[in-house]
Amino acid sequence: MSDNPSFVLRAIEDVAIEQRPIPEISDTEVLIEVKKTGICGSDVHYLVHGRIGDFIVNNPMVLGHESAGIVHKVGSKVKNVQVGDRVALEPGATCRICEACKSGRYELCPDIIFAATPPYDGTLARYYRMPADLAYPLPEGLSLEDGAMMEPLSVGVHSVSTLGNFRTNQSIVVFGCGPVGLLCMAVARALGAKRVIAVDIVPARLEFAKQYAATDAFLPPKPNDGESKPDYSRRNAATLKEQLGVEDRGSKGIDLVIDASGAEVSIQTGFFVVKSGGTFVQVLSLIMHNRAIRLSVT
Amino acid sequence: MSDNPSFVLRAIEDVAIEQRPIPEISDTEVLIEVKKTGICGSDVHYLVHGRIGDFIVNNPMVLGHESAGIVHKVGSKVKNVQVGDRVALEPGATCRICEACKSGRYELCPDIIFAATPPYDGTLARYYRMPADLAYPLPEGLSLEDGAMMEPLSVGVHSVSTLGNFRTNQSIVVFGCGPVGLLCMAVARALGAKRVIAVDIVPARLEFAKQYAATDAFLPPKPNDGESKPDYSRRNAATLKEQLGVEDRGSKGIDLVIDASGAEVSIQTGFFVVKSGGTFVQVLSLIMHNRAIRLSVT
Amino acid sequence: MSDNPSFVLRAIEDVAIEQRPIPEISDTEVLIEVKKTGICGSDVHYLVHGRIGDFIVNNPMVLGHESAGIVHKVGSKVKNVQVGDRVALEPGATCRICEACKSGRYELCPDIIFAATPPYDGTLARYYRMPADLAYPLPEGLSLEDGAMMEPLSVGVHSVSTLGNFRTNQSIVVFGCGPVGLLCMAVARALGAKRVIAVDIVPARLEFAKQYAATDAFLPPKPNDGESKPDYSRRNAATLKEQLGVEDRGSKGIDLVIDASGAEVSIQTGFFVVKSGGTFVQVLSLIMHNRAIRLSVT
Amino acid sequence: MSDNPSFVLRAIEDVAIEQRPIPEISDTEVLIEVKKTGICGSDVHYLVHGRIGDFIVNNPMVLGHESAGIVHKVGSKVKNVQVGDRVALEPGATCRICEACKSGRYELCPDIIFAATPPYDGTLARYYRMPADLAYPLPEGLSLEDGAMMEPLSVGVHSVSTLGNFRTNQSIVVFGCGPVGLLCMAVARALGAKRVIAVDIVPARLEFAKQYAATDAFLPPKPNDGESKPDYSRRNAATLKEQLGVEDRGSKGIDLVIDASGAEVSIQTGFFVVKSGGTFVQVLSLIMHNRAIRLSVT
Repeated sequence: MSDNPSFVLRAIEDVAIEQRPIPEISDTEVLIEVKKTGICGSDVHYLVHGRIGDFIVNNPMVLGHESAGIVHKVGSKVKNVQVGDRVALEPGATCRICEACKSGRYELCPDIIFAATPPYDGTLARYYRMPADLAYPLPEGLSLEDGAMMEPLSVGVHSVSTLGNFRTNQSIVVFGCGPVGLLCMAVARALGAKRVIAVDIVPARLEFAKQYAATDAFLPPKPNDGESKPDYSRRNAATLKEQLGVEDRGSKGIDLVIDASGAEVSIQTGFFVVKSGGTFVQVLSLIMHNRAIRLSVT
Repeated sequence: MSDNPSFVLRAIEDVAIEQRPIPEISDTEVLIEVKKTGICGSDVHYLVHGRIGDFIVNNPMVLGHESAGIVHKVGSKVKNVQVGDRVALEPGATCRICEACKSGRYELCPDIIFAATPPYDGTLARYYRMPADLAYPLPEGLSLEDGAMMEPLSVGVHSVSTLGNFRTNQSIVVFGCGPVGLLCMAVARALGAKRVIAVDIVPARLEFAKQYAATDAFLPPKPNDGESKPDYSRRNAATLKEQLGVEDRGSKGIDLVIDASGAEVSIQTGFFVVKSGGTFVQVLSLIMHNRAIRLSVT
Repeated sequence: MSDNPSFVLRAIEDVAIEQRPIPEISDTEVLIEVKKTGICGSDVHYLVHGRIGDFIVNNPMVLGHESAGIVHKVGSKVKNVQVGDRVALEPGATCRICEACKSGRYELCPDIIFAATPPYDGTLARYYRMPADLAYPLPEGLSLEDGAMMEPLSVGVHSVSTLGNFRTNQSIVVFGCGPVGLLCMAVARALGAKRVIAVDIVPARLEFAKQYAATDAFLPPKPNDGESKPDYSRRNAATLKEQLGVEDRGSKGIDLVIDASGAEVSIQTGFFVVKSGGTFVQVLSLIMHNRAIRLSVT
Repeated sequence: MSDNPSFVLRAIEDVAIEQRPIPEISDTEVLIEVKKTGICGSDVHYLVHGRIGDFIVNNPMVLGHESAGIVHKVGSKVKNVQVGDRVALEPGATCRICEACKSGRYELCPDIIFAATPPYDGTLARYYRMPADLAYPLPEGLSLEDGAMMEPLSVGVHSVSTLGNFRTNQSIVVFGCGPVGLLCMAVARALGAKRVIAVDIVPARLEFAKQYAATDAFLPPKPNDGESKPDYSRRNAATLKEQLGVEDRGSKGIDLVIDASGAEVSIQTGFFVVKSGGTFVQVLSLIMHNRAIRLSVT
C-alpha cells in the first residue's frame, strides 16, 4: 500500500511529486481520497519564500489545505460518514483538551495541526488522513469543487458573521477583491446585506466583484506626490463617502469594514470609513488561517 | 490488581461495598485514588427512588460524583498532571466531536458520560478512571474536602455568572438554602454582589445562609386557606419587597433571581420579584447536573 | 380649531365618534393627520372587557395605536420630517431619562405613554400629536397601509431578531397564526430562515400561513379523554417532530420557538420542541405591547 | 443675578476670571453650585494648544468638566434631586433622539454638548446649568472631591468593564499610570482582578500605582540604538512576560490590555502582551471623553 503520489515542497521554488506511504487511520479517523484542492495564497507564499512569519519550511512538506474528496476508509468508531461519501475537509485538527478547544474557540488551539503549515503535511496527495468529525458530507447540488471552497468560505463566515456580527439590512465595505474578499462579500449578500461595497486598485477585479456579489465598487484615487499615508487615507475615505453617499452614522453609514488586503492604507482608510459605533475586522488569511482581529470603534 | 472497594447501589434502598476491578487507563487518561466525595441529592434520590426522570438504575451502579483525590497513574500522553498531584474531578466526560462540544457548551453533549448517572458508575470507589484534562490540580490552601466541593460550586458559577451574567454591584435573590443555593450565594458574594437575599421556609437554614454568604434573609409567610398559588406568589413577592425595600426597577431592584428550590411557588414568586429587564435562572441540579434555564424578562 | 373627530371607547361595548380639540404641539413634536390604523387585539379587548390586566379603562379613551399618516404640522426644532411627509407612527413615547431609556431598552420605560393604553388616548382620530423622532418617513414603495403595519411588525422584529437572536439558516416554530405570529414568520423568512413551521388549531389559518411565510404547517392532534396537559404537550411535540423530521439537536433541530398564542399547551409543547441549547420567546402582545420574554434552555 | 465668576480660556495661554450671567434653567434642568472640579489633560491641552484634533477654541470658553457641587435650583418637573443635594455631574448632555441615544450608546451622540469642549462652556464657574438626570446624588461617605472624580472614573468603568468585559479573577495590564490609567487599575481591582500590572517609564509613578491599585509594576527597558519600534515592542513584551511570569494563553495570560498612554510603542507592546483570544482597549481620553476602541484578538 504505497501508491500515494503527493505534491511536495522540498525547498524554495523546488517542488516535486513524490510517493508517500498511505497513512494508517485510528478508530476515530477517516482516510480521504482527495479529489479537488484550491491553491491558497499561503501555498504560493511557502513556495516562493519558504516561510510565513514564524512558520518556516525546514523539511519537505506536502502543500494544499482547501480540499474535498471521497471517504475511502473509516475507523471503527466513526458514525458521521461512510465509505463513498463526498466530503469537504476542515484542515485543522485541534487538541480538544485546551481552554480554547473547550470554550468553543478551537481555531485558537496552540497545538492545532493545520494542513500545509510547517511541520505538517497538506492535502495535495491522493490520500489524506484526518479526524472523522472534520469531514463534512456535501449535500446534493454541491460539487466537489464547491466542497474545496468551503475552507476559504469559512474565513468569510468567521470574519463577517462571527466576528463582524453582520446582520440583515446592514452595509459593508470590503477592501481587497481577492478570493477571501470576494467570499466575504458573498457571505454578506447571503446574510441580507443592504449594501456591499468592494474596494480594489485593479479595475478588472472590481468589475468581477460587482458581477459576483458587490452592489457597488470603489476605485481609490492615486496618492498625490508627497502625500502622507494618513492624509491619503483620509482623502481616500472622504472620496469614497462622497462618491457613494456614505455617511458617518445612521442608516447610510457602514456597519462593518473588512480588510482583506493587508495594505496599510486600506486599513487606515477603513478606520475613516466605518461608522461611529461600527466594527472593523482585519482578516489575517495569509498569516494564520481562520484568524481575524475584530475592532469595535466605540 | 483487584483491590478496588466500591459503594454500589444494587436496587432501591439496597447498597453494598463490592470489589470492582481497578480500571485500565488509556494514553490520555488518569487513574485517581479518590479521597473525598460529597453526597449529592441525586445520589440520595437514586437510592430512594431508583431513578431521576428518564435516568433509571436498571443495573448495579457505583454512586458518587463530587470528588477529589490523588493522581495514582497517568497515561503516556498526559501532561497536565503527574502522579501524586492532589486534584478535583470534573465528573462528566464528553464526546468532544458533537456541535455542543465544539461550540463551547459541552455540558449539553448528548453523549456525556456522567459519574453515577445510569448506566455509568460513579466515584465512590478507591480508584476512578477519567480523561486527564478533567482532573484539576488543587492550589495550596485548598484541601481535598474543598476539592470535592468544586463540582457543586461549578453549578453555582454556571448559574450565577455564565447564565445569570451577574456583575459587581448587582443584587440577587436565591430561593432555596440547600447546598446549591448556598453556593450560588457564595459565588454572588465573590463577584461583588451589593445584596444577596436568601429565601427558605426553614428558619435555621436562613440563619446559616446569613452566616455563610447572604446579606439578607426572607422567611415567606404561610399561604392563607384557599389562597391560589398565583395569589400566594404575588403576596409573597409583595411581602419580600416591602420587608426588604426591594423595588421593581433601578438600583434597588433585583437583577437576578435564582431558583434552587424547584418549588412551584418559589418559581412564581421569583417572577414577581425580579426587576423589569432582569434575569431569572432555574437551576435543575437534581434533574441534570450542570443544567440550568435562563429566562430574561424583557 | 376643533374639527378632530375621534373614535372613543366610553365604556364596555360603548363607542362613539366624538369631537376632540386638535392638540397643540411643542417645539419637538409633530401633529399627524392619521390616515390608516390597524385594529389590534388590545383595542378589541378593551372594548369587550374594559381592561387588560392592571390597565383599566376608567375614563373615555380614544382607541387605536397601529397607524400611519401625513405630517400636518412640525415644531420649530424638528428636523427629521417635514409637513406633507408620509410617516409610520411609533405609538409609545418614553421619558428618555430613566435607566431603561438611557440603556437602550426604552420599551421598558415605566413612564411610557402608549397610545390607547389607559389613561392615554390613541390614534383613531383625525389628528394625533407625538414626538417628532417617533414619526418614520415611509420610503417609496411602501403604502400608508404598509406603514400602519410597522407597529405589529416591530413586535415580530423584537421577538425574532432582538430577543430570539435568530440568524440566517436557522429553523423556527411559531405557535399561533394570528397577525403577530404571521409577522414573526415573515421576519424569520426575511432573515434567511431555513425552516419556518407554523402551528395552529385552525386549518384555514395554517393554509394562509403557508401561502404567506411558512415553509411547513403543523395541525396538532386533539387531546385524548382524560389526558393531562403535560402528557398532551409531550405527545403533541413528539407528533410534530415525527411528522416534520425535527430532531432534538443539531442542524435538524429548532433553534427558536415563538409562542404567539398564549395557550398553555402551546407553551408547554414549545418547551418540548425547542432543541437543546435553543431559545424560547413568549410574545406578550396582548398584555403589553413590545414586551416578550426570552427563555434559553441551556 | 450676575454674580457668576467663571474661569475663561480667552486664547492660547490666556485665561481670566470673568463674570458671566447666571444661567436660566428649564423645567427639566437644574442649576448647580459647583464646589470641586478636577483639571483634565484636555483643559491643559486647550490652554497650551488651543485645540484638540478637530475641536478648536475659536471663542472664549469656560474650562472644566470634572465636577461636583450642590443643587441650587431645580426645574418644575425635576424629581430625582432637590435643592441642597450634593451631586456629581455628568458633563455631556445628549440629544436623546438619535440612533445612538436611543440604542443605549449615548456617548456616541453626534450632537453631544460636552462641557469645556468647543464651542460649549465648562463647569469652572460658580453656577452650571444641566439636565437634572445628569446630576447624581452622592451617597454618604463620598465627599465632593470624590464626586469630582466620577467623570474620569467613568472612563475607567467604560474601558475596563463595558468595553473590556473584564471579569472577576482575570488579569489586566495597563499602560500609563496617569489619572485615567490609575482609575482603570482601581476598577479592575474592584471587579476582583487576579493581577493588575502597571506599566510606565517613570519609576515614581509605578511606585504610586503599586500603592494605589496595581499588584505588579513593569518598567520597560530602554530602546537600543537603532532598534526599530516593532523590534523594541517585541523585546519589551518579552521582557515583561519573563519578569512577571506572564504566558500567551491560559490562566497565566493577560485577558485585557488597556493603553492609557497613547504612546505608539505602548500600543505595539500591548498587542504582543495580550493573550490569544484576549482584548485590547485603547483609551482616547484626551481626544474624546468617554471614547475608547476595543480590539479583540480572535
